[in-house]
Amino acid sequence: MSTDPRLENILSDIRDVPDFPKPGILFKDITPVLGNPKRFNEALSLMEERVTAHQPTKIAGIDARGFIFGAALADRLDIGFIPVRKKGKLPWETIGKAYTLEYGEAEIEVHQDAAKEGDRVVLVDDLLATGGTAGAACALLQSTGAEVPLISFFIELSFLDGRSKLPQGIPVDALIQY
Amino acid sequence: MSTDPRLENILSDIRDVPDFPKPGILFKDITPVLGNPKRFNEALSLMEERVTAHQPTKIAGIDARGFIFGAALADRLDIGFIPVRKKGKLPWETIGKAYTLEYGEAEIEVHQDAAKEGDRVVLVDDLLATGGTAGAACALLQSTGAEVPLISFFIELSFLDGRSKLPQGIPVDALIQY
Repeated sequence: MSTDPRLENILSDIRDVPDFPKPGILFKDITPVLGNPKRFNEALSLMEERVTAHQPTKIAGIDARGFIFGAALADRLDIGFIPVRKKGKLPWETIGKAYTLEYGEAEIEVHQDAAKEGDRVVLVDDLLATGGTAGAACALLQSTGAEVPLISFFIELSFLDGRSKLPQGIPVDALIQY
Repeated sequence: MSTDPRLENILSDIRDVPDFPKPGILFKDITPVLGNPKRFNEALSLMEERVTAHQPTKIAGIDARGFIFGAALADRLDIGFIPVRKKGKLPWETIGKAYTLEYGEAEIEVHQDAAKEGDRVVLVDDLLATGGTAGAACALLQSTGAEVPLISFFIELSFLDGRSKLPQGIPVDALIQY
């Protein structure tokens, strides 16, 4: 993973923030990567290389940080962008899916016409943690009839085993793994 | 405003959704624009033309739909991206500003090191409605020492007079006005 010098540079710009969002959690802050034009560009180029190979017709990004990577990638690939949003945020006819959080439940939604049979939708988010949100987002996109050829993350916290919550058989990619 | 054929095409893809988020409101749904590769590309190109003229060193986008346009524009211009987020979402040391909503208050934050003196930060959001969020975001960015040479919106709801809530003297641009 650490052979590409672009990746080394990106890694050195990720900032560890202890005790966020709560005591005992070491948060990986990506805002220095986003704020550094060279790093942001390199991160997108590395993700683009991996995403392009799966020939997507659309990119879906998860509210809110998934929008940052997802929209820029959709623009680079000249394909459409699908926002996957928290419940109640999308105005038109939606389909939703609940998923389990550490305490309680949450629900995400997409518009019914966001994708259809024949679409190849790559799902993008900044972080794979426990995998609940991405798993639900993936199931939602599949329920439109679309295929999900890849789930692409900027960072994966491997020790949380989020991959086990994602649909089996779909390739999962992460630029950086901790 | 309607002389550019790209703009006509974009306008025709914006979907009116009545009674969202509450009865009596006609919501302008931009997801068909985002989902159509040609339209999304055209919208970004038109915004890029207007933003470039102000020679930004960074683009700031407002949580969450402002991330969609803001991050793609930052990528196109090869400059850094600053997320302006709802209170409690940014992990590191923040500065925050409260603003008035129809009922009650909300607060947005940026990281203290998001920008600095000498930076020219163009603020981007999808929608100018009452202007409370963008006004607070602009003041926050200025408090880092940065200059805000332009506030750029995809859509402006002119009848809500949001411009009156924005700092005077800063150019405000909207691709589409209702």
